[in-house]
Amino acid sequence: MTLVTDASLVTVLAGGVGAARFLAGLVQEHPPRRVYVVGNTADDVVSHGLHVSPDLDTVTYTLAGAINPDTGWGLAGETWSAMAMLEHYGGQAWFRLGDRDLGTHLYRTSRLSEGADLATVTAEIAEAWDIGVRLVPVTNDRLQTRVTVAGEGEIGFQEYFVERRHAVPVEAVRFDGAESSTPADGVLEAIAGAGAVVIAPSNPIVSIGPILAVPGVSDAVEARRSATVAVSPIVAGAALRGPADRLLRELGHEPSVVGVARLYAPLVATLVIDEADAAEAAAVEAEGLR
Amino acid sequence: MTLVTDASLVTVLAGGVGAARFLAGLVQEHPPRRVYVVGNTADDVVSHGLHVSPDLDTVTYTLAGAINPDTGWGLAGETWSAMAMLEHYGGQAWFRLGDRDLGTHLYRTSRLSEGADLATVTAEIAEAWDIGVRLVPVTNDRLQTRVTVAGEGEIGFQEYFVERRHAVPVEAVRFDGAESSTPADGVLEAIAGAGAVVIAPSNPIVSIGPILAVPGVSDAVEARRSATVAVSPIVAGAALRGPADRLLRELGHEPSVVGVARLYAPLVATLVIDEADAAEAAAVEAEGLR
Repeated sequence: MTLVTDASLVTVLAGGVGAARFLAGLVQEHPPRRVYVVGNTADDVVSHGLHVSPDLDTVTYTLAGAINPDTGWGLAGETWSAMAMLEHYGGQAWFRLGDRDLGTHLYRTSRLSEGADLATVTAEIAEAWDIGVRLVPVTNDRLQTRVTVAGEGEIGFQEYFVERRHAVPVEAVRFDGAESSTPADGVLEAIAGAGAVVIAPSNPIVSIGPILAVPGVSDAVEARRSATVAVSPIVAGAALRGPADRLLRELGHEPSVVGVARLYAPLVATLVIDEADAAEAAAVEAEGLR
Repeated sequence: MTLVTDASLVTVLAGGVGAARFLAGLVQEHPPRRVYVVGNTADDVVSHGLHVSPDLDTVTYTLAGAINPDTGWGLAGETWSAMAMLEHYGGQAWFRLGDRDLGTHLYRTSRLSEGADLATVTAEIAEAWDIGVRLVPVTNDRLQTRVTVAGEGEIGFQEYFVERRHAVPVEAVRFDGAESSTPADGVLEAIAGAGAVVIAPSNPIVSIGPILAVPGVSDAVEARRSATVAVSPIVAGAALRGPADRLLRELGHEPSVVGVARLYAPLVATLVIDEADAAEAAAVEAEGLR
């Protein structure tokens, strides 16, 4: 499928739940076929032998109207028979995979083992759900967020996010594999040729951070700074969802729209903030953003 | 767990459904703790990234009283949500894995990836189901039945058995990996030290064949010939289940209790045949078996 890049194209850098909900709103206003989503894959994990791509699936399931509205992840009306059996054996079941959701991971794992790349498999899954938007993983290469927890050392992202429920102090975050990764086909073109580039309201550190860490992506966004808009995931000093506020603070950033403005200033000309943060507008503008 | 080998021990070489049903009867007559089962692993398959051991699971589920009584494989009361989703994507779903059953394969795959051997994982699964008997895979090493189909070439066992429903002409069967495999700990001791060795009513070619192909096993059984009994899987010229009769014929054997007697004559002193085959008793005895 050839990508037509013109002013009608909106390219969105997206993490998981926050981005998915933003996209669900966007496609009410903008033709889905003219939305190109660059998805985060640094949360991907091989769980019990299956390749799971949590952020890509959250975007797909949400746009398909199939997401579990209570959790924001996983499928609505899900059953948990496989997990119950896993627990019967005393297996690790903190990373919950519903029965229907397992079908997605079985499919992805099969196709990858056949030699298909992640972008191809992601497109096949998105097509089956008929989501309309083009969803592309930022890279087909291995990219893994690694989190250094105080007193514990470095652990995987899902160990931090799900098993520890992001309730442990973080000293550092790095994106293993980033240096040697390359952007998936079309990603740089979609940023360069879009009418607008949007950084979705996702965690700047662990959702948008790995996307920007893939060589070439950050430069491509910077080159489009005047057409790039970020939507703040922080409202009134707190994350809309997840540990963004806590992570920003622990890693030396201000957990506010001003802190987000400082992080994104080299990349974006406009930061969309909530009315609750209207009083911070001048401070955001002082960082060089509208 | 140390294995006590004495006259009370019965060691059974076992395939899938036929063996499982035989074992369910045996443990009504003999203490389960004194039954040692050497299981076939040459049907094992990696399906969608998961390690599936069909024969081991059929024995476990049957002895646990959890088997689907209609099919003879899989779990009773199973649901199929993961397979339905896999089919939604157009994925290969001819090898049916139920949702609860998937939990077993997720557990096995995890444990193997952690470095546990198949014998350890099999014991853990059997323990969770509290089946009583000791179930041990014939080998921890890779062992794969390969079937040469006329006009098609060599395919995997599950492709032959499930996908083609064993309805294609077979020219040859071989057990890939057998030469370099070694028996799992305890297998040879359990054959050498048992009061009786039993070859279950399983397919002689593709269920018992690979067990005997693991170096040392055939010799160990031959050394116990006088204490070894085979139960014929062929009654009145037809397989109790599956393609044993057809396979015997295609590979140049007689599809009858006499053909089974000829195959097993070097290994067993006694062949248990059905009353329907009483007229063949003399012909069986002519092969040197009781």
